[in-house]
Amino acid sequence: MAKELTPRSEDYSQWYNDLVIKADLAESSAVRGCMVIKPYGYAIWEKMQHELDRMFKETGHVNAYFPLFIPKSFLSKEADHVEGFAKECAVVTHYRLKTNPDGSGVVVDPEAKLEEELIVRPTSETIIWNTYKNWIHSYRDLPILCNQWANVVRWEMRTRLFLRTAEFLWQEGHTAHETYEEAEAEAQKMLNVYGDFVENFMAVPVIKGVKSETERFAGAVDTYTIEALMQDGKALQSGTSHFLGQNFAKAFDVQYQTREGKLDYVWATSWGVSTRLMGALIMTHSDDNGLVLPPNLAPIQVVIVPIFKTEEQLAEISAKVNEITAKLKALGITVKYDDSDAKKPGWKFAEYELKGVPVRLAMGARDLENGTVEVARRDTLTKETVSLEGIDAYVKNLLDEIQKNIFKKALDYRNSMIKKVDSYDEFKVEIEKGGFILAHWDGTPETEAQIKEETKATIRCVPFDTYLGDDKEPGKCMVTGKPSKCRVLFARSY
Amino acid sequence: MAKELTPRSEDYSQWYNDLVIKADLAESSAVRGCMVIKPYGYAIWEKMQHELDRMFKETGHVNAYFPLFIPKSFLSKEADHVEGFAKECAVVTHYRLKTNPDGSGVVVDPEAKLEEELIVRPTSETIIWNTYKNWIHSYRDLPILCNQWANVVRWEMRTRLFLRTAEFLWQEGHTAHETYEEAEAEAQKMLNVYGDFVENFMAVPVIKGVKSETERFAGAVDTYTIEALMQDGKALQSGTSHFLGQNFAKAFDVQYQTREGKLDYVWATSWGVSTRLMGALIMTHSDDNGLVLPPNLAPIQVVIVPIFKTEEQLAEISAKVNEITAKLKALGITVKYDDSDAKKPGWKFAEYELKGVPVRLAMGARDLENGTVEVARRDTLTKETVSLEGIDAYVKNLLDEIQKNIFKKALDYRNSMIKKVDSYDEFKVEIEKGGFILAHWDGTPETEAQIKEETKATIRCVPFDTYLGDDKEPGKCMVTGKPSKCRVLFARSY
Repeated sequence: MAKELTPRSEDYSQWYNDLVIKADLAESSAVRGCMVIKPYGYAIWEKMQHELDRMFKETGHVNAYFPLFIPKSFLSKEADHVEGFAKECAVVTHYRLKTNPDGSGVVVDPEAKLEEELIVRPTSETIIWNTYKNWIHSYRDLPILCNQWANVVRWEMRTRLFLRTAEFLWQEGHTAHETYEEAEAEAQKMLNVYGDFVENFMAVPVIKGVKSETERFAGAVDTYTIEALMQDGKALQSGTSHFLGQNFAKAFDVQYQTREGKLDYVWATSWGVSTRLMGALIMTHSDDNGLVLPPNLAPIQVVIVPIFKTEEQLAEISAKVNEITAKLKALGITVKYDDSDAKKPGWKFAEYELKGVPVRLAMGARDLENGTVEVARRDTLTKETVSLEGIDAYVKNLLDEIQKNIFKKALDYRNSMIKKVDSYDEFKVEIEKGGFILAHWDGTPETEAQIKEETKATIRCVPFDTYLGDDKEPGKCMVTGKPSKCRVLFARSY
Repeated sequence: MAKELTPRSEDYSQWYNDLVIKADLAESSAVRGCMVIKPYGYAIWEKMQHELDRMFKETGHVNAYFPLFIPKSFLSKEADHVEGFAKECAVVTHYRLKTNPDGSGVVVDPEAKLEEELIVRPTSETIIWNTYKNWIHSYRDLPILCNQWANVVRWEMRTRLFLRTAEFLWQEGHTAHETYEEAEAEAQKMLNVYGDFVENFMAVPVIKGVKSETERFAGAVDTYTIEALMQDGKALQSGTSHFLGQNFAKAFDVQYQTREGKLDYVWATSWGVSTRLMGALIMTHSDDNGLVLPPNLAPIQVVIVPIFKTEEQLAEISAKVNEITAKLKALGITVKYDDSDAKKPGWKFAEYELKGVPVRLAMGARDLENGTVEVARRDTLTKETVSLEGIDAYVKNLLDEIQKNIFKKALDYRNSMIKKVDSYDEFKVEIEKGGFILAHWDGTPETEAQIKEETKATIRCVPFDTYLGDDKEPGKCMVTGKPSKCRVLFARSY
């Protein structure tokens, strides 16, 4: 078969690349590090957007749009932020091209140099807080709960489709509040929205927690994160929500009149998820046959393939399929009927497996006689023959079952890959096996850096929940022996 | 009142700017020529996007995403295209900043100069056709019917919110076809989709036609356009659809194997509408009190304002309003109940008039007694007292009636502003009065340029339909007296 994937056991990284390309999700473009998101990949992203957007609106947020460009000087206004974001970025220096004097193509017009360079946004805190300064005067103007869907650019030396690209698509929420408590609660609320979305729609289990100082967003007081585990035992940060304190309000001088008539700086949060989620979705569920998509996000939930030899057979099957399709659509199920005769059924089966369509119905002449249909599940690759009587309810239940099953499978795997380690020697052995490790750490950036240097493992978060019993009890750092308040979660990561 | 607008009769341009700002639609940003689209403005744009996206999908199109950046050399590949688009654009020359050696802020790192400059896309034909080259090998790969929702940048010296900004949001469709006929039909089909959307949702009447060579899209064989007329008598190009022939396929060497087994270049179209439509929407319907929004695109279709003196009254009114709201929502109507006591009813009335909410219900103590409610229409500024019995159906009908009425009003105005002129002297007089003029033209770019130079009028299109009887009959050019096949449509324009 032309579209065979490298098996995961042979080369997980190559399997991922093969799958993204062969399932028509995305491809590299002529522009270094920038991808083309192909229609099938974009259809999944659109479903993600749709659900997230609904969840944001249900929690009181509104959408807006802020400029693509950020004046260079804005990036320097928040001391930590500039360290994190003003380095690898796309810089616009000129605003005009002109015909090359030698007549060949176009060249940059040296006379069209910008007075101040513009940066293509790597994230929008600075331009947004410069805007909020004009929107906020009094507590009556608060809270502001804005989100934007946008493209951002972070110049990356080593890129991978969806996981790390120079340009990517995301949403970024930016909220402004009267009090510390309200902003802090907002940051937590949005982390929970992300957690709900990733677990209930993507069927990807996550561990929620707070980042160490080293891994914190540049300019945040605290960064909350959801961490998922891929099939190769590496962690993938899937969404972050930042409590920004008054850092950006101070950097952009955004003060408001309080209820008591005083002036105070505004409290802030920001939070984002990106097309990187596509990588998490792919790597959590898929197998050597291709994508496995959760029914809640699959662009095609059910594909129907006719098995026929003659035109008459096809006509009879199609008549029956049209009845089934109408019933399924009435239940809100997305159905594709592939009656093309350019490809054989075997080819179609493989193709829709590659594309991760959750349920496949195949109907042949014998099914017609017997009033049955063959139902194949993408997640378990099992098939059974089912009566057409009540097929719509059967398929609807099956989709629910598949959604639950792939979450459970991912959760069982993830839970089996959380280990507790008490010595650094053991840590070095265990980290090679992949998965999450709960271990004690003395809380210093120095020890964290040493561990990363020596084992390539980073602290993914200090989890909010307890996973292995004594996680929250104090202990001694596995490296320095110094006191530790609780275990933290280590892993190698994407 | 704080939010008073400059009257249209005094200064139409200032009225427009006042309205965009005061109705919270958009504002200028710290980045020259780039706007911030505020939540209320963005909510209208989202409704436009939603309907257009539905219409694109119903006509067989899929969404995808292509890179923000275009290698400089790509722009030169299509000879006409480079003339039109490679001039005023944002040029990325570097990919890194570094800390200023003097410690103050950041500077561009001269060592991080790109080998080839990247252009922030002004439109995406070049990067997309470079991608399509890899997607298209045979007639079996055709047609390709892609659309993308994206931001684009065209450096503009004189900018106006929504109408002309350096960065704007739009959609751009890019399709690839086997034959001339199929591509040509696609370009016409999408023009009709735009026409349907603009007339049925925006309630803005348009004239459809084909552009003159001078006004054609750079790289197109033919550009089709929909032209609307603003209240000040100036035309606004509201959407264009281009038949690109084989120009981009030849520039990017995209050939396919035909059904006959030969090689041929692929036929193409592209089509787009942008946030400029917001300008058309605002300038077609609004008045000196503020926005007038068509119900089909209004983020809030009905606002309900309680008139009360005591808390008890408010509680009683609110109970009744909740019943009404539930009934309206059941009919799919978007309702806002503004029971805040920070502002008086008169302030609220003015505010929702400014925001263009199509229907306002006001309920006071006497209404409660009588089982009535006061219903105010934004389009006519009329009020009447209506029985609560069947209020939901009444409001639903009223919304339909308003949608039709504002379209009819705009259409009557537009039709009253189409004139027929046979001499250039008369043309010079009439063009000062605003509106469309149907006149004969000899078909040469030279005469077209002379007319533009002397009168600031341009040829908006050669209309497909007949408006004043003899439009399609041959005649003599009003300037040169040379033969003319038919009348063409002139106007001053945005």
